[in-house]
Amino acid sequence: MNRSSLKVSDIGEKQLIERIIEKSKSCSIMDNNFQTNQIHNFKTSIGDDSALTNVNIDKNSYLVSSTDMLIQSSHFPQDMTYFQMGYKSVVVNVSDLASMGADNIGFLLNIAIPKDTLLDDFDELICGVIQACDSYGIPLIGGDTNEASEIIISGTAIGQVDKYKALMKYGFKEGDLVCISDQLGYAALGFELLQIKKENKDKYEELLEKINEIDSTIVDMAIFKALKPEAKYLEGHILRDFNTKDNRVSVTDITDGLASEFYEILTCQRRHQSYDESFQSYQSSNDLNDDLSNRLNDDLNHESKYGIRVYEDNLPIEKEFKQIANVLGLDYLDLFFHVGEDFEFLFTINKELKNQLEEKMNFYVIGEITNDNTVEILLSNGDIKIISSKGYEHLK
Amino acid sequence: MNRSSLKVSDIGEKQLIERIIEKSKSCSIMDNNFQTNQIHNFKTSIGDDSALTNVNIDKNSYLVSSTDMLIQSSHFPQDMTYFQMGYKSVVVNVSDLASMGADNIGFLLNIAIPKDTLLDDFDELICGVIQACDSYGIPLIGGDTNEASEIIISGTAIGQVDKYKALMKYGFKEGDLVCISDQLGYAALGFELLQIKKENKDKYEELLEKINEIDSTIVDMAIFKALKPEAKYLEGHILRDFNTKDNRVSVTDITDGLASEFYEILTCQRRHQSYDESFQSYQSSNDLNDDLSNRLNDDLNHESKYGIRVYEDNLPIEKEFKQIANVLGLDYLDLFFHVGEDFEFLFTINKELKNQLEEKMNFYVIGEITNDNTVEILLSNGDIKIISSKGYEHLK
Repeated sequence: MNRSSLKVSDIGEKQLIERIIEKSKSCSIMDNNFQTNQIHNFKTSIGDDSALTNVNIDKNSYLVSSTDMLIQSSHFPQDMTYFQMGYKSVVVNVSDLASMGADNIGFLLNIAIPKDTLLDDFDELICGVIQACDSYGIPLIGGDTNEASEIIISGTAIGQVDKYKALMKYGFKEGDLVCISDQLGYAALGFELLQIKKENKDKYEELLEKINEIDSTIVDMAIFKALKPEAKYLEGHILRDFNTKDNRVSVTDITDGLASEFYEILTCQRRHQSYDESFQSYQSSNDLNDDLSNRLNDDLNHESKYGIRVYEDNLPIEKEFKQIANVLGLDYLDLFFHVGEDFEFLFTINKELKNQLEEKMNFYVIGEITNDNTVEILLSNGDIKIISSKGYEHLK
Repeated sequence: MNRSSLKVSDIGEKQLIERIIEKSKSCSIMDNNFQTNQIHNFKTSIGDDSALTNVNIDKNSYLVSSTDMLIQSSHFPQDMTYFQMGYKSVVVNVSDLASMGADNIGFLLNIAIPKDTLLDDFDELICGVIQACDSYGIPLIGGDTNEASEIIISGTAIGQVDKYKALMKYGFKEGDLVCISDQLGYAALGFELLQIKKENKDKYEELLEKINEIDSTIVDMAIFKALKPEAKYLEGHILRDFNTKDNRVSVTDITDGLASEFYEILTCQRRHQSYDESFQSYQSSNDLNDDLSNRLNDDLNHESKYGIRVYEDNLPIEKEFKQIANVLGLDYLDLFFHVGEDFEFLFTINKELKNQLEEKMNFYVIGEITNDNTVEILLSNGDIKIISSKGYEHLK
C-alpha cells in the first residue's frame, strides 16, 4: 500500500469532516436498499448543526438511544488496527441497541485524535466505522472531530423498538432458563495473549508453541474475537419476537463479564420493583410494563428474592480451551465469568420456549433463575460455589 | 463547604452511575411539569443497555441529533469549575439543537475522568450537567462513565422538529438580512483574560487595573461568558416560527467564530445545490426541501454565487470593548469575527420580516446576503475589506 506522510494537522478539522462525509456517502450509495431513504435525509442536513433523520415513532414505540466511549489506552490493544478501532466503536453501541431488540436508526460519531495522526490512519479508522455501519444497516448520520493526546471515540446509536417488545434486563420469573448466545472467554483469552505479546515477545512465542500443540486454531480465533468483536443484531430481533406480555425475555449484552452481568440483571429486577413502588403516580397507561409492574409488585409484596444458578457441566467450554488457559496459568472459569468484551448476549427465557427458540438461533442454556437470592455455580465435582460479581469495572 | 477526600476510584464505575441516576432522579422530580412524562420513560430503562424514551415523531417531523465532545485541555480554561464543565457540556449540544429550531427530547452523557478525581468534584460536575438539563428542559436519559488521563465529556442531544420548520444553514436569498442574536467577542475576551491570568498573574493584575478604569463590569461579564455560556433555545423556537416555504430563515450557532460561520453557511448553500443535482433520484416527496431544492437548482443554473457584506457601523461593539481590546494589544474586529464560543446565533431573514421579529426577540442586523461571491466588510472609514475564514479549527 502506498502510504502518504500527510498528517491530520495538515488538513484540519473541517476537511476531515468533509472526508468523513465523502466516504460515508460513497459507502452508503454502494450499499443495499435499506439505506436509500436515510441517505436522502442525511443529505438534507450534511454539514449542518445537527443531523436530521426521517423516522416514524408512534405511541406504540420507544426511541432507543445508547452512547459508549472507547479510549485508546483502555480499550484498544496495541495490535488493534485503525480499521478495527473504528469498527469496534460502532459494534459496542449497536450491541446495546441490539440487546433491547431495537431497529437501528442512525449512528453519531464523535472522534478525538492526536494532531500527528497520519491521514491514512484516520481514513482507515473511518473506513472501519463505515464498514461496521454498513454491516449493521445503521447509517452514519452525524458527528464531530476533536484533538486529544490519544484516540477517543464516542459513539451514539439511535434506534426504535415496539414498546411491548423491548428487551429489558428485568422481567424474568423463577424457573426461567439462563442462556448465553455463544461461547464466552475467547475475547478474554485474546486480550491475555496480546498483553503477553506486548510485554515479552519471547515468552509469547514460547507459549504459542505449547498452545499450538493443543489446538492451532484457538489463538487466531481468540485474537480475532478480541480485535474485531461483532454485535448480536439479528439475535436481538429473534429474541424480541419471543418476548410477550406473559413470557418476558430479558436480555443484556456481556461487556464487563458474565458474572458482573448476572448481578446487573438481578439489580435491575429489584430496582424496577422499587421504582414501581415509589413512582407509581407517574405510571401512564399505554406503557410496556403495566402487567409486568403489577407482577413485580406482587413479587415485592411476597419479598421474593431472585437468584441465578448455573451448572458447570452446561458451560460451553471446550477441553482445548481449558488446557490452553492452564498453559497460560489462568483459571478457565475466570476467563468465562469475569472478563468481558465478548458482546454475546446473556438472556433469560421461559423453559417452554426453548425448543422453539432453538429452531431460530444458536444458544446455550447454562442455568436457571432461582428464588435463592444468590448467584451460584454447581461445579462438575458436585460442590456449589458462590460466583462473585467482580467483572471489569472502570475507575476501580 | 465540607469536602471529603474520597476519590472516584474508591467507589468505581457502577456506583458512579448510580450516583448520576440518583441525582438526576431527584432533580427531575423537583423540576417543573414538562418532564414528568419523560421521567416515567427514563425510569423504565434505568440501568438497562439503552435509554427508552416516549416520543411521537410522525412523517411531518425529523428526528434531530447532535453530538459534541469537550476535552479538558482544549475546552476548559483553568478557572472553570467542575459545575461549569458539566453545564457547558449540555449547552454546546443544546445549542446545536436550538439552531435547528428543534424541541428537546433527551440528553446522553458520556464522561471520562481521571481515577484520582475527587468524588465531590465528580458530583459537582454532574450537578452542572443536571442543572443545565433542567434549564433547557432536556431530561438526562442515559450515558456511560470511563477512565481517562483528563476530563472528557461527550454529550449527545436528541430532539425533533417539524420538517417544514427546520432551521438549516442554507436557504437564504440575495438581499436577506444577516443578523446575530447578541453582541459577540465577550467570550473571546474572557478566554484571553483567563489565559493571561494563568501565564502571568502580575501582568493580569496590572491590566485589570487599566481595564477597570475604562469599565468595571466588562471583565466579569467576559469571564462569565467564557466560563458559563448559554444556548439560545428560546430564540431557536422564535426563529422557526418565522421560517416558511417562501421565506426561509437560515440559522447556525457561532462556535468557531463568526467569520468561519459565514463561510460555513455559504458552503452549505452551495453543497445543498450540488447535492440536489447529484442525488435527485433520492428525493422523496414529503420533504422539507422540495420547493427549496427547486429554487436552489434554478439558482445553480443561473450560476448565482452568494456572498455576505457586513457594515462595521452596524456591529454591536461598544466603545469600552474597543478600548479594552486595545489595552490587551488585541484587534477588536479579530475578537468579534475570529474567535468563537459565544454560542450566539448567526441567522439570515427576509428584510420584510425585520420589524415583526424585533417584537419577539433581540438581535442585531449586521449586513446582508449579496451575489458577489465574497465575504466583505464595509469599514467605518469607507474601505471595503475581505473577511478571511480563519476561525478556530481543531487539529490545525
